[in-house]
Amino acid sequence: MSRTEISTLGEFGLINHLTKNFELRNASTIVGVGDDAAVIDHFGKQTVVTTDLLIEGVHFDLAYTPLKHLGYKSVIVNLSDVYAMNATPTQLTVSIGISNRFSVEALNEFYEGIYAACERYNVDLAGGDTSSSQKGFIVSVTAIGEVAPDKFVKRNTANKGDLICVSGDLGAAFLGLTLMEREKRIYLENPQIQPDLEGESYIVGRLLKPEARKDIIEFFAQENLLPTSMMDISDGLSSETLHICDQSNLGCRLHEDKLPIVEDTRNAAFKFGLDPTVCALNGGEDYELIFTVKQDDYDKIILNEDISVIGYMTDIEEGRKFISKGGNTFDITAQGWNSLK
Amino acid sequence: MSRTEISTLGEFGLINHLTKNFELRNASTIVGVGDDAAVIDHFGKQTVVTTDLLIEGVHFDLAYTPLKHLGYKSVIVNLSDVYAMNATPTQLTVSIGISNRFSVEALNEFYEGIYAACERYNVDLAGGDTSSSQKGFIVSVTAIGEVAPDKFVKRNTANKGDLICVSGDLGAAFLGLTLMEREKRIYLENPQIQPDLEGESYIVGRLLKPEARKDIIEFFAQENLLPTSMMDISDGLSSETLHICDQSNLGCRLHEDKLPIVEDTRNAAFKFGLDPTVCALNGGEDYELIFTVKQDDYDKIILNEDISVIGYMTDIEEGRKFISKGGNTFDITAQGWNSLK
Repeated sequence: MSRTEISTLGEFGLINHLTKNFELRNASTIVGVGDDAAVIDHFGKQTVVTTDLLIEGVHFDLAYTPLKHLGYKSVIVNLSDVYAMNATPTQLTVSIGISNRFSVEALNEFYEGIYAACERYNVDLAGGDTSSSQKGFIVSVTAIGEVAPDKFVKRNTANKGDLICVSGDLGAAFLGLTLMEREKRIYLENPQIQPDLEGESYIVGRLLKPEARKDIIEFFAQENLLPTSMMDISDGLSSETLHICDQSNLGCRLHEDKLPIVEDTRNAAFKFGLDPTVCALNGGEDYELIFTVKQDDYDKIILNEDISVIGYMTDIEEGRKFISKGGNTFDITAQGWNSLK
Repeated sequence: MSRTEISTLGEFGLINHLTKNFELRNASTIVGVGDDAAVIDHFGKQTVVTTDLLIEGVHFDLAYTPLKHLGYKSVIVNLSDVYAMNATPTQLTVSIGISNRFSVEALNEFYEGIYAACERYNVDLAGGDTSSSQKGFIVSVTAIGEVAPDKFVKRNTANKGDLICVSGDLGAAFLGLTLMEREKRIYLENPQIQPDLEGESYIVGRLLKPEARKDIIEFFAQENLLPTSMMDISDGLSSETLHICDQSNLGCRLHEDKLPIVEDTRNAAFKFGLDPTVCALNGGEDYELIFTVKQDDYDKIILNEDISVIGYMTDIEEGRKFISKGGNTFDITAQGWNSLK
């Protein structure tokens, strides 16, 4: 495979090279890449904006993350935040910091992933910044979306008695990460041994190629259903549940027997000697949605097989409790952010 | 001075601590910091979005950049891009990546700078991401602005015969950088020697505390004047002039005797044995605006003492030329982006 040095293109040659195949898909994108700023016309709608910073060695490991997947996932984690507002993503900006260890071919792969996500989610690349870094790969993505006024859904608006729901299934991305970290360790100890990912494609896919729950937002629109609060699950179910409780000033009950955990996830957890429930509660990176709905909307929610009702909101005095299959009650605690300890 | 470890606050405690004093200034900011995304209502206006990534060791050196100034400048470089679209900035997102070498007090200083810029430019902090980095300080800012439909100004719309104008003066930020790099070198060789910044406050200020040209955009509105093309000067006058020529498919003439270079800049250039004209052409980081106007608007432009007419646009066949004070003609060339070579 050939290697083209980035310096042969220059900054603007590189931007042009990487973005030339990105057509514009949204009528609201008036000016895209290539000026001081993009221009967006959200006439009559409200604009939603969110941003995420991903740093090599902290958020991803290029030893087992193909650059195309990294590009795709960098977009998804932001789109997931836009959907979590009950909004539709429309534009992206992508900034990268790169050392000269990366070739133009490597960046092509990264942008192929960005492109694939833009295509699948009907989003326009509208700008960015390309910069050198002294060390490692840095990605900063900002996503913009639109929502009809008063249709956006915040975290602090849940009510007592509301049902707590999650989309999809939980815990698989964490087990994918556990597997990849193990395989990397084995490989570093003995480079002769090839990675053993037999039968683990589901958990690995959930880690490396997550999707954002566009379908759930479409389901809400179709059923004319407005959640009372919502956020996406990036840090883990426990952590996000506590956010909704804190911001809405309420308590909650979650039931272990209602948690959506698929067979592949249970099998992988068993293999690693981990409790699948703990993986689902604290794993993170699932990019599912957690939301609350009025009890009256239960009949609508059960129409969607990809939504599970896992508990309900209570008064703050009743605490934030988790009820195990055995009937024991535990306080919900968040693993939280300890990377700076 | 006390030192509080970031880990004592946790991620959400930290975000709350850093952003609690940021009041919302724009009616268009419906939801600010603290949810999956911000919500913005630009009803009837178009939205402008731009982003910049700043990396320690590449874009700034903390040996001589106070964190408060870094916060301020991180905002300014983005606002400058919004003004360069003839738009008004309204919201910001700020993402940071930090190693545990930074304390809460250090981040307070950084956010004081962000706050000062938000206050001066009437912009709302609307979101962000806080992340750990393995090494160094990383800042990614996205700015959002608004503009009446059809009032935004691009780079590719200059016409033959248009006058080329710049705001303020050029070259000072580069000389400020040259001075600070020299003082750092001297200090590293002999830590007993204190930095000698006597009489250099102008060039140092232009480097460490740049401003964005809000006043020029206000002048355009007041005079009902719409530039035919515009961009901000971040890489240097030569490079930006060539962008406007390339994108508008035109040539140009720039006149050395028209370049706005102030006395402090000339003196500093003389001290370092540098040509002030070369500093103005290739220096970068001035965050002034370069724009073109119809010849008919000359009478309006000269009303503003802070705008200089430095040349004019020609047919592409006439090339991109610089005419020296001595009457010699040179091709304009950009220094370009060589940090990855």
